[in-house]
Amino acid sequence: MGGNNSVKIISFVQIALVCVYPLPGFLFPYTKTHILILMSGNCFGQVFKVITFGESHGAAVGCVVDGCPAGLLLDVETVRRDLARRRPGGGGVSTSRREADEPEILSGIFEGRTLGTPIAIVIRNMAQRSADYDKLKDVYRPGHADIVWDIKYGFRDHRGGGRSSARETAARVAAGAVARVLLTGSGVTIHAWTQAIAGIEAPSPDSDNFDPNEAEKNIFRVPCRRTADRIAAKIEELRDAGESAGGVVECRVQGLPAGLGDPVFDKLDALISQAVISLGAVKGIEFGAGFSASRLTGSQNNDRPLPGGCPPGSARTVAYSGNSAGGVLGGISNGAELVFRAAFKPVPSIAKKQLTVDRFGREVELEIGGRHDLCVCPRAVPVVEAMTAIVLADLMLRRRSDRLA
Amino acid sequence: MGGNNSVKIISFVQIALVCVYPLPGFLFPYTKTHILILMSGNCFGQVFKVITFGESHGAAVGCVVDGCPAGLLLDVETVRRDLARRRPGGGGVSTSRREADEPEILSGIFEGRTLGTPIAIVIRNMAQRSADYDKLKDVYRPGHADIVWDIKYGFRDHRGGGRSSARETAARVAAGAVARVLLTGSGVTIHAWTQAIAGIEAPSPDSDNFDPNEAEKNIFRVPCRRTADRIAAKIEELRDAGESAGGVVECRVQGLPAGLGDPVFDKLDALISQAVISLGAVKGIEFGAGFSASRLTGSQNNDRPLPGGCPPGSARTVAYSGNSAGGVLGGISNGAELVFRAAFKPVPSIAKKQLTVDRFGREVELEIGGRHDLCVCPRAVPVVEAMTAIVLADLMLRRRSDRLA
Amino acid sequence: MGGNNSVKIISFVQIALVCVYPLPGFLFPYTKTHILILMSGNCFGQVFKVITFGESHGAAVGCVVDGCPAGLLLDVETVRRDLARRRPGGGGVSTSRREADEPEILSGIFEGRTLGTPIAIVIRNMAQRSADYDKLKDVYRPGHADIVWDIKYGFRDHRGGGRSSARETAARVAAGAVARVLLTGSGVTIHAWTQAIAGIEAPSPDSDNFDPNEAEKNIFRVPCRRTADRIAAKIEELRDAGESAGGVVECRVQGLPAGLGDPVFDKLDALISQAVISLGAVKGIEFGAGFSASRLTGSQNNDRPLPGGCPPGSARTVAYSGNSAGGVLGGISNGAELVFRAAFKPVPSIAKKQLTVDRFGREVELEIGGRHDLCVCPRAVPVVEAMTAIVLADLMLRRRSDRLA
Amino acid sequence: MGGNNSVKIISFVQIALVCVYPLPGFLFPYTKTHILILMSGNCFGQVFKVITFGESHGAAVGCVVDGCPAGLLLDVETVRRDLARRRPGGGGVSTSRREADEPEILSGIFEGRTLGTPIAIVIRNMAQRSADYDKLKDVYRPGHADIVWDIKYGFRDHRGGGRSSARETAARVAAGAVARVLLTGSGVTIHAWTQAIAGIEAPSPDSDNFDPNEAEKNIFRVPCRRTADRIAAKIEELRDAGESAGGVVECRVQGLPAGLGDPVFDKLDALISQAVISLGAVKGIEFGAGFSASRLTGSQNNDRPLPGGCPPGSARTVAYSGNSAGGVLGGISNGAELVFRAAFKPVPSIAKKQLTVDRFGREVELEIGGRHDLCVCPRAVPVVEAMTAIVLADLMLRRRSDRLA
Repeated sequence: MGGNNSVKIISFVQIALVCVYPLPGFLFPYTKTHILILMSGNCFGQVFKVITFGESHGAAVGCVVDGCPAGLLLDVETVRRDLARRRPGGGGVSTSRREADEPEILSGIFEGRTLGTPIAIVIRNMAQRSADYDKLKDVYRPGHADIVWDIKYGFRDHRGGGRSSARETAARVAAGAVARVLLTGSGVTIHAWTQAIAGIEAPSPDSDNFDPNEAEKNIFRVPCRRTADRIAAKIEELRDAGESAGGVVECRVQGLPAGLGDPVFDKLDALISQAVISLGAVKGIEFGAGFSASRLTGSQNNDRPLPGGCPPGSARTVAYSGNSAGGVLGGISNGAELVFRAAFKPVPSIAKKQLTVDRFGREVELEIGGRHDLCVCPRAVPVVEAMTAIVLADLMLRRRSDRLA
Repeated sequence: MGGNNSVKIISFVQIALVCVYPLPGFLFPYTKTHILILMSGNCFGQVFKVITFGESHGAAVGCVVDGCPAGLLLDVETVRRDLARRRPGGGGVSTSRREADEPEILSGIFEGRTLGTPIAIVIRNMAQRSADYDKLKDVYRPGHADIVWDIKYGFRDHRGGGRSSARETAARVAAGAVARVLLTGSGVTIHAWTQAIAGIEAPSPDSDNFDPNEAEKNIFRVPCRRTADRIAAKIEELRDAGESAGGVVECRVQGLPAGLGDPVFDKLDALISQAVISLGAVKGIEFGAGFSASRLTGSQNNDRPLPGGCPPGSARTVAYSGNSAGGVLGGISNGAELVFRAAFKPVPSIAKKQLTVDRFGREVELEIGGRHDLCVCPRAVPVVEAMTAIVLADLMLRRRSDRLA
Repeated sequence: MGGNNSVKIISFVQIALVCVYPLPGFLFPYTKTHILILMSGNCFGQVFKVITFGESHGAAVGCVVDGCPAGLLLDVETVRRDLARRRPGGGGVSTSRREADEPEILSGIFEGRTLGTPIAIVIRNMAQRSADYDKLKDVYRPGHADIVWDIKYGFRDHRGGGRSSARETAARVAAGAVARVLLTGSGVTIHAWTQAIAGIEAPSPDSDNFDPNEAEKNIFRVPCRRTADRIAAKIEELRDAGESAGGVVECRVQGLPAGLGDPVFDKLDALISQAVISLGAVKGIEFGAGFSASRLTGSQNNDRPLPGGCPPGSARTVAYSGNSAGGVLGGISNGAELVFRAAFKPVPSIAKKQLTVDRFGREVELEIGGRHDLCVCPRAVPVVEAMTAIVLADLMLRRRSDRLA
Repeated sequence: MGGNNSVKIISFVQIALVCVYPLPGFLFPYTKTHILILMSGNCFGQVFKVITFGESHGAAVGCVVDGCPAGLLLDVETVRRDLARRRPGGGGVSTSRREADEPEILSGIFEGRTLGTPIAIVIRNMAQRSADYDKLKDVYRPGHADIVWDIKYGFRDHRGGGRSSARETAARVAAGAVARVLLTGSGVTIHAWTQAIAGIEAPSPDSDNFDPNEAEKNIFRVPCRRTADRIAAKIEELRDAGESAGGVVECRVQGLPAGLGDPVFDKLDALISQAVISLGAVKGIEFGAGFSASRLTGSQNNDRPLPGGCPPGSARTVAYSGNSAGGVLGGISNGAELVFRAAFKPVPSIAKKQLTVDRFGREVELEIGGRHDLCVCPRAVPVVEAMTAIVLADLMLRRRSDRLA
């Protein structure tokens, strides 16, 4: 940020006076000088409900999972393991903020099993370096939510995004770990990986015999070593240019029973879409053939069910001639592998100098320091898996409750 | 407690065996011969809530809009007009089922204005030709939800899809008409059109001066006459081959105030995604640069805010150097045009003979008659607009309620 | 109302200008002259959800029942029968507004059975005599919600209460009829009756052998002919004095399985209380020994379970030494009869002249004409049953979904 | 479809038999030996939402308050102070379990003010003495939820009630402390006290000049020293007899603006009833004249508004000739003092020997040791206040969001 931008932030009180207007004050008289805002949408799910809490630079982030059935084996180590996959990996793609990410389970567990009661999990924030953000308090970083926060809320916590920070996803991963226990016990496995970075695509793994651990062997989480090498070279080049990269994460779910999802608003793919696009950097999602399906003909795109499938009600999976559908028909899982891809935009915080504006509408030159990922995809992989697990756990429980006898 | 009560607690495992199986069937004794299923997910929205009801071949479809503010001018003609846009257009792309689609408003209106109370709208089904579907009752049509309904519910209404029918979207359009009144009054306009059919793409209209009515001038709702002609030729070819086509619908919202959407699960784009992917034939959605963003660098993709923007709180729209973001940053509208595209798969009901299986798992050859669209995009355009309007109306009301003073 | 009260109502537009304040108009610019209000709380239940719609003097009232399982025998006659019990009975206790109350089921039914999809039921308003209310438009009737509507909404539909009218309870009774089908099939029977009017109490019927139809034999729905006669005399006396009466309705549920209700906020008795106190005239509710329990000692009030009860999980009902609990322990049904009483205030619309104020704060003398019940209890009986049925149907379905295996 | 596919659809009944039994156990195969239960109803409120978590003998109890507006002054001391009022008071009426009840606020606070984001508060359990409960594990204590837990869940945590424990109310008090900050800032004050114990009633305080602290001066929280002395003598007597006592708590809210509550299901009194009856020991609730109103005539019970009240929209409070309504008309606050009373049953855990049954249905003699209150009313006072505060905070925010302009 140019040294000439020395304008002080106007006081909180002043902002309030400017933004809030003379409203029917009698209900909340004390608000004359403060903004009364509340934030909706911290809760997700119907039966398997997740609420997350916590700010980037507060005491802790965490979640309450309400609606997890009793009897599941769940220990803190399971949660810790999933959180570890989300931590910065090194290798130059990710931020150097180092959080221990040590979860504590406060409730809902008795003798190593879930009780059916709400499960509260807390992850304390340790490695906050608020000072890193001081010089950003008046400036809107391009591609970030800074400007919309000011417009929406009239003020913002400039220290790492506050509630909007990617740190919030740690709470989602903790909740996803609980969901995953439920799913794994039912034979459902979820694997995501980086399918492309900066336009360099990995060949699509064969559904029938792919090694889900292959992608974990390199820092990009690309399921192909050769592609990983090409990406490494590209990333090096982008770093030198002070740039960042976007990418695509693919997720596949195996062993998913047919019949999940509801036919109207709560279709399986509709709920997955909300869950995955609720990750800040995702700009698109597609299922099965996805956008390519729009260029196919009916007979090319129709997956026909193969003879010999089991009778209704007993079939866990059904065989089809192909999987253009990506495992979902009319919003309901069809017994094939669930396949979707999410497009992530390049990280907006780049080393390169950028022009932007400050909160007073003046053009300023911005140079961002601090700790930032060069591409979010590798760390996004476990978060995509977590959100998928949360949706599927919810739909499996909803399916059980929908079938009353 | 008497000392003689020394009986040990039976083990957890044993309790489970004793208590849980056989499942307490006594609760619903009459279900011995019938399936007890209920269908979730008929409700959408938080403040501006929409519930739809009705089956394809029942007495009526309809909706209740709960949470529409009082004082809006609303007459039945407004609803009728939107429903008319969804009706089959002719020209060979759409079904020949002809519904009058005459809406009746049963409540929530007084002297031409909304009362703030629930608005119930009913559209009676008239042109049901159930017999068309008789021969399909045992067969699973490829690409349709038939097979998953049997798996999920154990039975299905084979007459046109029942609750899963596209007829249900008439109720969404009616609810969307109410939402649109609210939005239009606030200066928000929503326009969708067919951006591509069968891979033939229309040039992208210029945001600053495009004619939203251009697309309404041809039966494909493509905003370019030349492209429409090419599509017409392609459709003719596909019809001869007994095939069908997919396509892409683009939607743009102008005049949308910045600040809509919540930072965690209920991001603007996340909710639009759920809403649009809850339309049966949609296989993907992308915002702004969408999947292409994954191939850009940070500086290419960042839209930088331009100087001279209004101070926080007062700005309706903000100027940016570009619109890769598609109008949404961190899940919150940023004051630019909201832009998204949805990919529709080809209509699965094709004239061509197809192999499939029947409910007993035997291979059968299927030839579908009846009335079917060749490509859903033209008729999907008003439905995409309706779902977008419902989400935006909800978020505008939520924004109002979030800002308490 | 005195003839000197000729002050005209100020126009709708003017009211808006007065009440609304200069609010952040940019979101809803058209509201400068109209009030933007929406009414929450039209929806009830979690799994068996009921939404009601309709105003007293609009086209219709009705409900959508979302979450009713498939397979239940349900015809329009069942709904009509329950509605008939709510209609004015004659005998001088009830209003002379005569509605046919003919329900139409628009969706969710196929071949005489529920489909599991939303059930929409419409009851058209026929016998509206809006003119009856003309002279009341500026005056606040004591004991009515007129004044709070003006304070809350800035305007009100003075014709019979609009959305607040007791007419709305017809929609609840229709929804309750659906719930009752589900309960009856499970062996649960709900019976309410008038336990007291104007302080004249009927002897409490013996739970083990009482005739639920006894109360239906007189217009007061009192389960004792002798008491009914005494009440008839008292009512005659009150009519002559231009007065009205309050009363107590008792409700008992037999055959209710143990285990309904959740241990924290959604206790069985908590939900019944919300449901019953959401009837406008109810001022109190008590379960089992109720307020008397506060005067007993622990050993007097404790119902001890009797030996020989069935093992856990299999017991439908459990025998106790008494029923001070009224069938609920820790918020969960305990297998005994569910017993509660609701206190209804006297009808506020009385023939006697009353002093009150008009909307301009001036004292006026009011004389109410029109059609009014002298005591609501007889007609409230089926409404109390309906609300109880809705809560119990919801909890039975929730119990099923809570027990996942 | 080939003409050879003439197989008839099997009958509906047959489908059911085939598909539904055995129940699709495949979804949760690991449940063969464990019970899958989940507990609903841990969440309360619409805009100001509270979720509580934690078991009596787990690591902690706590809450997340989602929907509290930003800008409120809130420190841990405020929460601690309310929790202290709920702690056992000594004087022989309450349990000797001594919890420090030290709250920690984990999120939602920044520089001493609320952020508008979820507020998580944790209270660790310290003084658990699980061994006290060992001998109770097979026996159903009369008047307790033991038996219904076994019926509902098949197992129960016998150590102090687990999730059903009164310890859970500490989390409610913490959430209530947040609600109270919001209310106090708006001039709304809530005061509850013990109105009667064991049938000994305190004279009703005068609304216009009573000292809310009077009740805090004695261990019974009775607002009259003379009555407190009589109760002390009675309690002594009951203790000698190995008995316990019930009582009545009265709650009054002053400064409540008119207009809170919604006209259909979410009436102010309906929501207060759910909130207060969701406290385990409450058996009844009444508003204003309550059950006595059922014995009055219309003119006796009608509170008439007094002239000189303010014009609509501006009036905070309105003067009436009386307060039979208890401050609520048609479910909406009318500007008068909100008054209600809740009846508490006597504590079921008594020193006296009692007959009961064990889990095998055999009669046993039970003598309860451990730490128990003799009457819950004194400690229930702050809990009733907390639940009232939570409802009112929610309705005040809902009112704000309902009035959109």
